[in-house]
Amino acid sequence: MDSRLTELVGLLPDHSVLTEPDMTAGYRQDWAKDPSAGTPLAVVRATCTEDVQATLRWASTHRVPVVPRGAGSGLSGGATAVDGGIVLTTERMRAITVDPVTHTAVVQPGLLNAEVKAAVAEHGLWYPPDPSSFEICSIGGNIATNAGGLCCVKYGVTTDYVLGMQVVLADGTAVRLGGPRLKDVAGLSLTKLFVGSEGTLGVVTEVTLRLIPAQSACATLVATFDSLADATGAVLGITQKMRPAMLEFMDHTSIGAVEDATRMGLDRSAQAMLIARSDAPGEHAGHEILEMGDICRSNNATEVFSTDDVDEGEAFCAARRMAFDAVGRLGSLLLEDVGAPLTQLPALVDGIAQIAERRDVTIAVVAHAGDGNTHPLIVFDPDDAELTERAHLAFGEVMDLAITLGGTITGEHGVGRLKKAWLPDYLGPDVLELNRRIKAALDPEGILNPGAVL
Amino acid sequence: MDSRLTELVGLLPDHSVLTEPDMTAGYRQDWAKDPSAGTPLAVVRATCTEDVQATLRWASTHRVPVVPRGAGSGLSGGATAVDGGIVLTTERMRAITVDPVTHTAVVQPGLLNAEVKAAVAEHGLWYPPDPSSFEICSIGGNIATNAGGLCCVKYGVTTDYVLGMQVVLADGTAVRLGGPRLKDVAGLSLTKLFVGSEGTLGVVTEVTLRLIPAQSACATLVATFDSLADATGAVLGITQKMRPAMLEFMDHTSIGAVEDATRMGLDRSAQAMLIARSDAPGEHAGHEILEMGDICRSNNATEVFSTDDVDEGEAFCAARRMAFDAVGRLGSLLLEDVGAPLTQLPALVDGIAQIAERRDVTIAVVAHAGDGNTHPLIVFDPDDAELTERAHLAFGEVMDLAITLGGTITGEHGVGRLKKAWLPDYLGPDVLELNRRIKAALDPEGILNPGAVL
Ligand SMILES: Cc1cc2nc3c(=O)[nH]c(=O)nc-3n(C[C@H](O)[C@H](O)[C@H](O)COP(=O)(O)OP(=O)(O)OC[C@H]3O[C@@H](n4cnc5c(N)ncnc54)[C@H](O)[C@@H]3O)c2cc1C
Ligand SMILES: Cc1cc2nc3c(=O)[nH]c(=O)nc-3n(C[C@H](O)[C@H](O)[C@H](O)COP(=O)(O)OP(=O)(O)OC[C@H]3O[C@@H](n4cnc5c(N)ncnc54)[C@H](O)[C@@H]3O)c2cc1C
Repeated sequence: MDSRLTELVGLLPDHSVLTEPDMTAGYRQDWAKDPSAGTPLAVVRATCTEDVQATLRWASTHRVPVVPRGAGSGLSGGATAVDGGIVLTTERMRAITVDPVTHTAVVQPGLLNAEVKAAVAEHGLWYPPDPSSFEICSIGGNIATNAGGLCCVKYGVTTDYVLGMQVVLADGTAVRLGGPRLKDVAGLSLTKLFVGSEGTLGVVTEVTLRLIPAQSACATLVATFDSLADATGAVLGITQKMRPAMLEFMDHTSIGAVEDATRMGLDRSAQAMLIARSDAPGEHAGHEILEMGDICRSNNATEVFSTDDVDEGEAFCAARRMAFDAVGRLGSLLLEDVGAPLTQLPALVDGIAQIAERRDVTIAVVAHAGDGNTHPLIVFDPDDAELTERAHLAFGEVMDLAITLGGTITGEHGVGRLKKAWLPDYLGPDVLELNRRIKAALDPEGILNPGAVL
Repeated sequence: MDSRLTELVGLLPDHSVLTEPDMTAGYRQDWAKDPSAGTPLAVVRATCTEDVQATLRWASTHRVPVVPRGAGSGLSGGATAVDGGIVLTTERMRAITVDPVTHTAVVQPGLLNAEVKAAVAEHGLWYPPDPSSFEICSIGGNIATNAGGLCCVKYGVTTDYVLGMQVVLADGTAVRLGGPRLKDVAGLSLTKLFVGSEGTLGVVTEVTLRLIPAQSACATLVATFDSLADATGAVLGITQKMRPAMLEFMDHTSIGAVEDATRMGLDRSAQAMLIARSDAPGEHAGHEILEMGDICRSNNATEVFSTDDVDEGEAFCAARRMAFDAVGRLGSLLLEDVGAPLTQLPALVDGIAQIAERRDVTIAVVAHAGDGNTHPLIVFDPDDAELTERAHLAFGEVMDLAITLGGTITGEHGVGRLKKAWLPDYLGPDVLELNRRIKAALDPEGILNPGAVL
């Protein structure tokens, strides 16, 4: 073994360092399956903050790149291994302490989002952020990507629930930022800066989360439409009037794919479907759902169905959440995450359909519609070089379209490696330079997640 | 006139540069009345982003410090003028555009918080953050301090409503960060970094705010207590059970001072008073208020009064909001803003009373109790040197106490110049160094607000 590796192994608890290719293979890629993933020197499975510190001190000394990794459910290649680097996974750091009096929880990064939700629910509390991947993504990864989800149209995104964290910097220094204080303005807003930094500024080893009382029972509405424009019109009608607890969109292709997978009886003929929820207390949920139904009808909904049965409502949400998986059965996917100011949502959805037609590729679209955040899923066959090329052209065109509409290239998945080429166009040179200056100030040697984001 | 000044005057619209001491005097201090305020070279009253850019380009060339200023209602000396520097006020930049479809507003920094609220209310919308000073503070100052307020126990603080901004950097470069997109994770979270940066990283010249539908009518509860411990016990009881739309605390001294000023019939004999609100829809507000009342009673409240009359409820809130002014009639004030994790609120309030007794000074305490954020107001007489010294000792001891309890030296007012000496203790050397590195990366010459925060 490489003498540097021997040194690293000596710094860490037994069995923390994986070097055998068949052991490290599973840590080379995230869910985006970046084909250009490198081969890591080793995978470090940290058990505590000190392990992370030891690894980063060692890496800084030897100038070895370190790619932080949570559960590997990322969709932008943010956790893709680099050749000769370390993949540093927090999957074994899984402690949680809930404080029911202050409505906070202190959590290690490796715990899955669903496990955090479950642990706080035992105290009648709720951690709202709910990426569709909540059962397979870690809270550390959520912090690092500022994950969104389905309920954030009303309840906000991950950053809104992060009060503090412990983070290990590139040189191995561990710092505590913020803490269990609901308000704190002493010094720069560093906690917020680290949220969404995609492993490029530091490794999160502990996080203090703000919790809220358990959500009231939800009423759910499902509406189908004959045209994309009607569906997006209904979205604007609803968001203008109220704050739904969820407002999701599926297009024809994704409805079909989910129906193939579930046989739950979705209307395959529909061009679009909305799934909306209200969690207003008591009978107010019903009132909101009625109002949403009226808005859908006045936007030519072909069918409007509503239920206050919790399981039935959950079945529709589950259908929406499984869309990536279901569409994935049609072929390989290029996953997009473009967003736009809400008023531009119709133009975005329509423009994506035009790109699909022009490039002759299938693009299924699901969206956190109430946030203006869409996920065009571009289907291709890696064995068909010509189709693959068209899919990649479409991938870029969708991001260009979002930029033209005043939108973003990524609403929640992060830039990672796969959207990096579009970041300069999106940010412009001055803001890109600001990002670079902060990266350089915090990680001057470029140890942390090189090749991601910037 | 100094040739540099002649150059500056030439760069800006007529009447933008004030140099006469009687014209600039009013811009030397903020509401904290820092006695060590300097005498500025000039006051620049910017009318647009370009004016701010021209001023900062000029300042960078000549290495002249620039203190950004909003409405000067700050309580920590953040906008205190420095000798030979420029005070750059945004008070004339007052445009606002509201987009009722996307629930966003684009606002120039000089508009007052109350004016923003009023403009968006015309569209049935609400901008929640409500510092007590809402009628006299600017939205730019709110962004720069990450202002809190009364409703943030339920609705969050300023940063939660900032989607984007235009900011002019020290060298005069204007950048746009974020925008009217509800979710955007492309690049580092720079928007959030600038919120709360107290004019040390850039001058905010435009901000994109997220709005929500107008608040439902509030029901209000007022409860009085014979002891501080009972009152803080009730606070914990309430926050553990629900999310009140407001949960404010006043102690004996502040109740008396407000009663002196208003003669509204507050119970002068009470040791503490809580003012709480619910804005749950329909009859749910009443239910929440009833539950709060029960909790107060089981914490030995001496009297519990509730009302769903909007004006009557507002009168109690107005009483709370005028506490600084009212206590200010007792003498000069040293204003604190210490916060603690909620469970430590009783220890914080109790400890402050002990400091007051030990130092033999009057400390009135009002608090955004639901956030654990207190405002001890230390009364002194500047002509009494010995009392002034005791007051200053108490000022430091209160911050030391907060740090000991795991709290913060400032929950919402900012560090400014008056709390700067305590920041190293609070942050510790590593986090302080992180702050310094970011400041240096963004303002290498130290042009912006030197002497504030760091
Ligand atoms: C089916 C499916 C549905 C999804 N739906 C959503 C959705 O609705 N909303 C959404 O936002 N995302 C969604 N995602 C994307 C993904 O789940 C999120 O980005 C998630 O936050 C990643 O968490 P992870 O633990 O898997 O992180 P990883 O994939 O392991 O890493 C993600 C990024 O975070 C960094 N990182 C991870 N842990 C740390 C740490 N402790 N410290 C520093 N950096 C770290 C990595 O370097 C990488 O850049 C979905 C993914 C799938 C597969
Ligand atoms: C009676 C009273 C009650 C108060 N109650 C509260 C309360 O409940 N909650 C609360 O949070 N605060 C409260 N405050 C404090 C104060 O009102 C807030 O800090 C407010 O946000 C300051 O706004 P301003 O426009 O007056 O800013 P200023 O006092 O002018 O400046 C404050 C800071 O912001 C910087 N700044 C101002 N404008 C800009 C800009 N455009 N770009 C960059 N930096 C800028 C300044 O350099 C300074 O550091 C209260 C003050 C008073 C007098």
